[in-house]
Amino acid sequence: MPKQVNHEERRQIIAEATWEMIMKKGIEGTTVRAIADEANLSLGSLRHYFSSQEELLSYSMELVKERVTERIEKKFAQDIPMDELLVHFSLEIIPLDDQSRLEMTVWFHFMANVQFRHKFEGDDGILQALEQLLSLLEAHGRLKPGIELQEEIETLYALVDGLAIHCLFAPVRLTRERIVPIIVKHVNLLLLHPLNSSIFL
Amino acid sequence: MPKQVNHEERRQIIAEATWEMIMKKGIEGTTVRAIADEANLSLGSLRHYFSSQEELLSYSMELVKERVTERIEKKFAQDIPMDELLVHFSLEIIPLDDQSRLEMTVWFHFMANVQFRHKFEGDDGILQALEQLLSLLEAHGRLKPGIELQEEIETLYALVDGLAIHCLFAPVRLTRERIVPIIVKHVNLLLLHPLNSSIFL
Repeated sequence: MPKQVNHEERRQIIAEATWEMIMKKGIEGTTVRAIADEANLSLGSLRHYFSSQEELLSYSMELVKERVTERIEKKFAQDIPMDELLVHFSLEIIPLDDQSRLEMTVWFHFMANVQFRHKFEGDDGILQALEQLLSLLEAHGRLKPGIELQEEIETLYALVDGLAIHCLFAPVRLTRERIVPIIVKHVNLLLLHPLNSSIFL
Repeated sequence: MPKQVNHEERRQIIAEATWEMIMKKGIEGTTVRAIADEANLSLGSLRHYFSSQEELLSYSMELVKERVTERIEKKFAQDIPMDELLVHFSLEIIPLDDQSRLEMTVWFHFMANVQFRHKFEGDDGILQALEQLLSLLEAHGRLKPGIELQEEIETLYALVDGLAIHCLFAPVRLTRERIVPIIVKHVNLLLLHPLNSSIFL
């Protein structure tokens, strides 16, 4: 009996082949035929999973977001001390290993492309997550008094995304050792009880 | 007598047509023929100015950097009080008008493309400029004592680039009114004499 391949699993394999193609050729150079070749599928089989190129590309973009979210949720399931949440979350966003570098590069391609950008305008999930984390810390009295929450969410979001992009483009300069103290220093501006960088290195 | 067109001026016009094509089709979809059409030139004339597509694209990327640099230098020629330099510089990086939005979008396309990214790894000029500005402020005793200069340069670079990208993708959320207080608040962490946001609005 042939090996059963789960439908959703196959869709993910195709999406990953799409990422590979995007890395090689950009979104504009990524044809359905090339993706089928990359995934070792006939064009007909691929069409069984995605009826249009648009559907395939949209799914591939969604999958980047899902993977990052999964990784963060897995990390947070580890019962992390509340005060450390913002730093751990930030470090999960920054592409410090090969897998997250690939995902962020693909994401970057999508974001450079007007057609896909609309979908995610201000909704890549990071802003909302930061809002939740900061609200949680505030509700538990872990933040310094007088913090302007909305402004601090926006600031941390920009700082983390800026570090993420710089890490993507200049990994030699922006190592984990360089990034951790920057994030901890910034988060400590917000926390009532400051953290020590060394626990994140 | 036909109007004389300066060689360099024509190259810039072609580079601007290249930007338009990149906005429409991405870098991979930008052919020399399409650029020639966009610039109302024959393919032969275009080749007179750029002998290869690579040369044309490299020049187009350099021109983005040059334009931004020019704008910043023009701004700084206006004899700005030293303490305000970091804020003005940051605001020039952030795409708050149509022209700088176009430039940053094109830049983003180039940076998403591995082929071009190498050239600019850690050298888009912003890091060096921030280093100069912060060193100048330090030399004139305008910074708080005990500032770790290299760390603060990297932090401000990430914050400003993060805001720039978020402003590009979510201009409705990230208005000048929202961005200015964030930058001023951060810069005030460094300055001995804090600035008031209102002078930048």
